[in-house]
Amino acid sequence: MPEKLVIALGGNALQSKDSAPTAQAQLEVVRQTAAHIAEISRRGYEMAIVHGNGPQVGRILLASETARDTVPPMPFDVCGAMSQGYIGYHIQQALKYALAARDRNYPVVSLTTQVVVDRQDPAFQQPTKPIGGFYTEEEARALEREKGYVLREDAGRGWRRVVASPLPRRIVEIGAVRLLWDHAIVITCGGGGIPVVENPDGTLEGVAAVIDKDFAAELLAEQVDADALLILTEVEKVAVNFGKPDQRDLDRLSLAQAARYVEEGQFGVGSMLPKVEAAMKFVRANPGRRAIITSLDRALDALDGKTGTVVSFA
Amino acid sequence: MPEKLVIALGGNALQSKDSAPTAQAQLEVVRQTAAHIAEISRRGYEMAIVHGNGPQVGRILLASETARDTVPPMPFDVCGAMSQGYIGYHIQQALKYALAARDRNYPVVSLTTQVVVDRQDPAFQQPTKPIGGFYTEEEARALEREKGYVLREDAGRGWRRVVASPLPRRIVEIGAVRLLWDHAIVITCGGGGIPVVENPDGTLEGVAAVIDKDFAAELLAEQVDADALLILTEVEKVAVNFGKPDQRDLDRLSLAQAARYVEEGQFGVGSMLPKVEAAMKFVRANPGRRAIITSLDRALDALDGKTGTVVSFA
Repeated sequence: MPEKLVIALGGNALQSKDSAPTAQAQLEVVRQTAAHIAEISRRGYEMAIVHGNGPQVGRILLASETARDTVPPMPFDVCGAMSQGYIGYHIQQALKYALAARDRNYPVVSLTTQVVVDRQDPAFQQPTKPIGGFYTEEEARALEREKGYVLREDAGRGWRRVVASPLPRRIVEIGAVRLLWDHAIVITCGGGGIPVVENPDGTLEGVAAVIDKDFAAELLAEQVDADALLILTEVEKVAVNFGKPDQRDLDRLSLAQAARYVEEGQFGVGSMLPKVEAAMKFVRANPGRRAIITSLDRALDALDGKTGTVVSFA
Repeated sequence: MPEKLVIALGGNALQSKDSAPTAQAQLEVVRQTAAHIAEISRRGYEMAIVHGNGPQVGRILLASETARDTVPPMPFDVCGAMSQGYIGYHIQQALKYALAARDRNYPVVSLTTQVVVDRQDPAFQQPTKPIGGFYTEEEARALEREKGYVLREDAGRGWRRVVASPLPRRIVEIGAVRLLWDHAIVITCGGGGIPVVENPDGTLEGVAAVIDKDFAAELLAEQVDADALLILTEVEKVAVNFGKPDQRDLDRLSLAQAARYVEEGQFGVGSMLPKVEAAMKFVRANPGRRAIITSLDRALDALDGKTGTVVSFA
């Protein structure tokens, strides 16, 4: 039986390092990323891909806000849906080619994906994720009054809207992911999924929120019964005492060790911490399985056990 | 065996009549549309949905152009991909609810879809589809020089970019559509599909073009072996002498009659003509089958043979 992977792709796999990258520059980066993923596929792994969307959805929102006197601004959930179409298109185009170049004629498909969050999630009481452009204090107050937005002063650069980052509860399109699993590489839950809440009458309703893509990938990995959750980021291994003289890269991390390091505050909030937490959640739910945190270019070696940080139950 | 439909949804099924509709106003229209489609599904038809995207992709492009000093403008193929995410999200959310309200727990899934066009298509020599905002003549000349765009003076309102409307040749993600067919309502080829050309090395490359969604729906109907192509528009029946005292609504239209009326110039270019031509193409390829042109709210009656214009081989 082929091993089933859910791969969480970080922003650096999708985005050139320019301050204002064009879509074309981004496509070049996606092509390099696709080559790595095609190699993993060629080795016989089955997979779904969950990509981040931070910079892309940021630019979509900023364009929409900037043009607001000309075109009605897009709600943030719609911006997320747009980013799924945009990034999914690039990945599926590049990956299909990278597979064909390796004599694999294998379907690649990206699904517009809604992810249910809980309206009672405590995250909604404490929005933390900055989105969109900067405003003056006066504009910020007006947006709070008129639109009910929450805005925060952002490190002296101006005021910025913040939204909640609730936990993913349910992947609405999970049935389609399962149907496609044996036959295609599925790109789903892009940007953590389009966040929706369930109303009492059963309707889903988009909300302004950002679901962490590593947590969405973790939920997906549980729901498709994945053998491994592969979280790709900028570094080859998770480290403790990161950036200090006594930095130590970790080859293995048990749940108990990981919990201790989290307790010590070893992992950056909003960067390594959610990755380690998502990995912990996966192995807690699947004690015989593993989560791997590593970089894109070392992913195959990490799957072979040669590098990366393997998070396991014990 | 359930009858297999490909449904082409026109702009009026997706779009409120405001001059500058918000995404929320549009979602309301989509919800009404979804109720009609859910009724068709409840009657046991299997289906894929191809939606238009004209107004939506127009607003995405216009916002991108308006904000170009702040955010790098999006290429038009990426705008198309974004519109697929946006409209697909709304349709799948609304349709899933409309089905559940009818006790049908049935997956709805929208696929980011690329459609291959031929770089040698004569349409590229004669771009006709206006997209995006209006420019002064000076700006227009600059865009022609700097970006290689083609711009045309638009009925005294200013200069506007025009792109080609080539024929769809191949649906890249057709394999996924077929896999999902028996298990889900599939939203695909949105806006006619993201237009791509095939390079000699096998890579696909997005191009600035608009594929007619009725022709894309026709190609899809052929490729999934659909029993009927259902083209939904603003009118209940196709008419000859349209808008004149002797207007005559048509119940049936054979290929030979249709060809004669096309020859006579009975059908509006860019409105009824492509619908009739797509219908003709489908029944020419599938002589035992039918294409139906009608309005959304009469679709079920038309499937029952009570109204609409049925285009058939003979």
